[in-house]
Order: sequence, then structure tokens, then C-alpha cells
Amino acid sequence: MAERPIEPRMGAGEEFALIGRFRDRLAELAPPPPGTALRAGIGEDAAIAVPGGATATSVDALVDGVHFRSSWCPPRAVGRKALAAALSDLAAVGAGPGEAYVWLGRPDSLAAEGCLEIAEGLGEVAAATGTTLAGGDLTASPVLALTATVVGHAERPEDFVGRAGMRAGDALCVTGELGGAAAGLLVLEHPELREQAGERAAQAAVVRQLDPVPRLALGRALAAAGASAMIDLSDGLGGDAGHLASASGVGAEIELERLPLAAGVAEIAAAAGHDPRALAASGGEDYELLCALPRPRLAAAEEAVRAAGGTLREVGQAGGLPEVRLRLADGRRLPASGYDALRG
Amino acid sequence: MAERPIEPRMGAGEEFALIGRFRDRLAELAPPPPGTALRAGIGEDAAIAVPGGATATSVDALVDGVHFRSSWCPPRAVGRKALAAALSDLAAVGAGPGEAYVWLGRPDSLAAEGCLEIAEGLGEVAAATGTTLAGGDLTASPVLALTATVVGHAERPEDFVGRAGMRAGDALCVTGELGGAAAGLLVLEHPELREQAGERAAQAAVVRQLDPVPRLALGRALAAAGASAMIDLSDGLGGDAGHLASASGVGAEIELERLPLAAGVAEIAAAAGHDPRALAASGGEDYELLCALPRPRLAAAEEAVRAAGGTLREVGQAGGLPEVRLRLADGRRLPASGYDALRG
Repeated sequence: MAERPIEPRMGAGEEFALIGRFRDRLAELAPPPPGTALRAGIGEDAAIAVPGGATATSVDALVDGVHFRSSWCPPRAVGRKALAAALSDLAAVGAGPGEAYVWLGRPDSLAAEGCLEIAEGLGEVAAATGTTLAGGDLTASPVLALTATVVGHAERPEDFVGRAGMRAGDALCVTGELGGAAAGLLVLEHPELREQAGERAAQAAVVRQLDPVPRLALGRALAAAGASAMIDLSDGLGGDAGHLASASGVGAEIELERLPLAAGVAEIAAAAGHDPRALAASGGEDYELLCALPRPRLAAAEEAVRAAGGTLREVGQAGGLPEVRLRLADGRRLPASGYDALRG
Repeated sequence: MAERPIEPRMGAGEEFALIGRFRDRLAELAPPPPGTALRAGIGEDAAIAVPGGATATSVDALVDGVHFRSSWCPPRAVGRKALAAALSDLAAVGAGPGEAYVWLGRPDSLAAEGCLEIAEGLGEVAAATGTTLAGGDLTASPVLALTATVVGHAERPEDFVGRAGMRAGDALCVTGELGGAAAGLLVLEHPELREQAGERAAQAAVVRQLDPVPRLALGRALAAAGASAMIDLSDGLGGDAGHLASASGVGAEIELERLPLAAGVAEIAAAAGHDPRALAASGGEDYELLCALPRPRLAAAEEAVRAAGGTLREVGQAGGLPEVRLRLADGRRLPASGYDALRG
């Protein structure tokens, strides 16, 4: 195969035109709201803003063949998931949504139409969350890749919740249900499970894998209710609890029996020969929130999350050495890094 | 070849450890300066800042096989160029440097050592420009790719210079010398030119290709001196002047004979059978600045750029239809999009 020529970034007419269409579509789909701080966005060398208050900034990436396969993740879904996963990091600090700056790496196999479908997906999640698509770049790439840098806002830096504030005795709580994204991935990678687990279970789980919802409103509610530390569940409950533990210098114990299972997880785990709770404890990408709450704040936090349309479940407690253990129903304890022993 | 398994983002111990080392090194190399607005950076879900004033934000990407080849661009140079090219967009609006958020897509062929060399390269450019490396992410990727989202600062949004303010009669000026990056690329892609053009010429041009310098101080000087529009030369003078023209709704004429040629360009163009001025007019990635200056501001702008350690050369004038033309020594005029006719 001939090597692709490296070119200085000269005005290749077609690529310029596509960059323009991609950016224009982003700007149409998620324009700055009236009265916003954003003064100049897509089309200039840089987007100009007057943030006021404090900002939280995070970057996330989705790469074909690593985080998804384009064979089972159509372009619109790639756009939706890339922005949702990035915004989940803002949810984890309790930020309000603000602006997103995206880069699309486009392989020759992705037609202009596919690029614009990715823009549609980005625009849908932006509109649903109040995010402005303030900057977009597109270049050729041997592999489909999308990065999103997102900026969220709060009045004061103290309004954001970090990873390091967990204290012994705090309740460990999760929003929503767990294991769905990992179960959905099993179905997508092993289509024969679809029939064994049933279409309804498969579909519910696949939606959790392909189309996560960033819990921005729940993150703000938990921050306001006094969460002492928070993180979003991207790596899996065991790993992410470990991040809180090492940042806070205090351990935690998670009770496996208390983990709320997402729809379809039980059926798919049975079909695949997994323990469903292992999927909930170790499967990544649920993009729910894990937080530590001082006990006096627990009831108010539950109420605030309910008022914001979510659910909050206590699944364990902080304390002990700075490591995370899983407690099984029979009283055995496993290191969180040992959850693989529960699988298969 | 077996497909690589897609995994939910579970705590793969080795990858976590590498992400941690990569982030720690970034944070060590370019920590927030004392008294900075940055409150929490690498290691949290999001970097927390209290920007104050106005911000300019831009995203840029470098992809192996598209923008460079890892065969001639070692990891440290990839890190240096990725951040320099991104910061050049901040120079183009006259911003002061602030924070950078990077994503590294790491192929299996890039050892942990290579990732840390990329961090070194990022850190060198960050230190040289006063940029804080405030966020970093690393994931697997079939191809080496690096994106940098950079945030720059000014007191007020009006302090930034956009693309749309060029007026008929404005002088068109460039900083520094042109064509070096394109000439360097010729040498890297056609090593036989190295001997024909001479080692000194080749080396000078290769440095311009691999190690561009973002003209942040010059951009601030030009903004303060009253530039009416500005852009950095990433696509090539013809294409980038076209961006100013279409944003401003006014054309421009560039005099080919006035273009300042970078060291080595004449020799390499001769060896390759190109017109050296075609490399200066159409070669991309010089990362110098192109600005429009109202004539009463020209002398002060030249002085301000000199005081900031650079040079400013008038190369043409704004006016006419919103298109860009190149005027040759013999008086012929070509559309800027026709510069390819000058090549080879």
C-alpha cells in the first residue's frame, strides 16, 4: 500500500469545505444561548468567552477499535457518546454545563455525510444538556477518533466537588443502576447472547452502552447537598472507588449485595455465565455518579437527587486503609482489584 | 489479525499506572505559577480555574501518517509541535498563554518511555511560553495522535483580534520568514534533497517543520498596536489570507516578490525544482502571523514587533472583491487558489 503523502496544511479545497460544513452545523445545532458569555465561537482561530465565576475543564476521547467499533456504533451514536462521556466528568465535579470544543479525526472511509451525522449526535447531547458547541476541528486520520474538551461553570471554585474529600464514616452512594454498559458491550461483541438473554434485556443494555446520560443535574444536586467527594463511573465501581480512596487517603468497603443492577444485566450475565454483580462492580462506562456523603447529609442528598429526577443508593461506607474492598453476601471480603475473580 | 477486544474502561492496572505517570510528569513540568487562577488540575475529574477577564480557546490535533511520520518525528518533537501549533491559534488572536489540556492516543508500538518523552516535549513548550499543563488524558489508539485544547487570556474580550476586521486599504503584514516548514517537509519526505540542497539549508528548514515557535508575544504586540484582523499561517499564506478575506468581506493582493523567504528555502526549492516563492506563498505550517493593519498604525506596529524580538514585513494590501490575488514580478495576477500553478 502506498504511503499517504504528508502535506503542509495547504488549502485542500474539499477538506476546507467539509471543515466549514462541520463547523457550521455544530454552530447551528448548539448556538450560545442569548446573553451568554460566549462572544465568538466556531470560525475564528479561537472561541472568545467571558467566563465569570469558576470553570471546570476536562478532556475525553473515543477511538474506533479501542472504545467502540464503527461496525456496531453508527456515526450519530459516536457523536452522542463522545460528548456525553466528556460531560460526565463535569457532572462528577458538580458543574453546570458550558462549552464544548471537539476534534474529529476522519478516516477516508467516513463520508462527509458521516461527519455531519456525528455533528448531529454532538448537537443532540449539547441541546439536551444546555451545552454550547463553541469550537470544532476536523482533520484526516487513519482511524475514526473524536475528542471533546468540555468547560463547566460554577459561581465559586469551592462549589465544585473533588475526589479528595472523603472521610471515614461517610456513606458511599451511587446514582441510578449499574452494570448495564458492560452487559451491553457483551451483547454487541457476542451477538449470540442477544437471543439467549432476550431482545428486551439486550436492547436495554445496549442503550446503556451506546447512549450514556451525563448526570449533570444530579451532580449539581449532590454538590449542593454537601457531598464530600465525587467521581463518575467510567472505569467501573471498583476502580473509581479506588480513585476516591487514594485521593482522600481513606479506604472504603462496598457491599456487593447492595449494588443496584441495571435492566438486562441479570439476563445477559446468566446467558454469558457471569455473576451479574461482577458486571455492576467492575464493568465500566455506566457514567453514573459515585459520591461520599457525611451521614448527616444523607437524607437531604437523597431528597435532592429525587427532586432532580434521579435515584441514590447507599452501597457502602468509607473507612480503614486507603484501599477499597468488596464485601460479599457470605461475609468474605475481596480487594476491589480482585473483582475479576467474580467474573465468568 | 485478531480484533483487539473492546473493553469497558475497567481498571487495567498497567494502563492506569501509565496514565498516572504521564499526568504526574505533565504536572511537574508545567505547574500553575504562584498566585494563579488554577485551583485543581491534573488528577481530578476536571481542572478548576477562576479565569477572570476573557478567555480564548482553541483545539488542534497532530496525527501520525497525516501531519507527520513517527519515522522522522521522534516523540519529544511530537509533543513540542502539538502544543506549539495549538498555541499559535492563541497568538493569532493576541491572547496571553494560559492552560493546555492534552489527549494522547497511544499505539501499542509506543512504549511508556515514548509517552513520557511526549510529556517532556509538551513541558518544554509549556515552560517556554508560560503555559500550564492543566489536564491530560491518555488512551489506547491504533495510531499515535495528540490533541491540545489551549486557553489564553486577556482582560476584556475586545482585546482579542478576530479574522473579520480587515478593511480596504489596510496593509497586510507577516512576521518572520515563510516557506521554511514546507521546505523542511520536502527534505524529510525526500531525503535525497538533503545532499543537493546542502546540510545547512536542510537543517534550517527541518527545524521550521518540526519545531515551530508560536508567536504569542508578537501576537499580543500586534493586537495592542491595533491590528484590524489576524490569523496564524497554518494552511499557507494564500489560504489563510483567504480566511481573513472571506471573514472580512474584502479581498487582498499579495506581492509575491515581497515575501520574506526562510533560511534554506531557496536551496531546497532549487534542488526540488520548485519556485521558492511558491513555497512561501502556499506552504503551510510556518506558524508566523498574518495581520491587517490600518496604515496609520503600521510604523508603531513594526516598532512593537521589533521590541518583542520579531520582524514585521508588509507583503500586500487589502481591497477589492473578497478574494485574494497574488501579484507576480511581471505584473501578472493569479488567484491565491492558483498558487499551485507556481509549483514544480
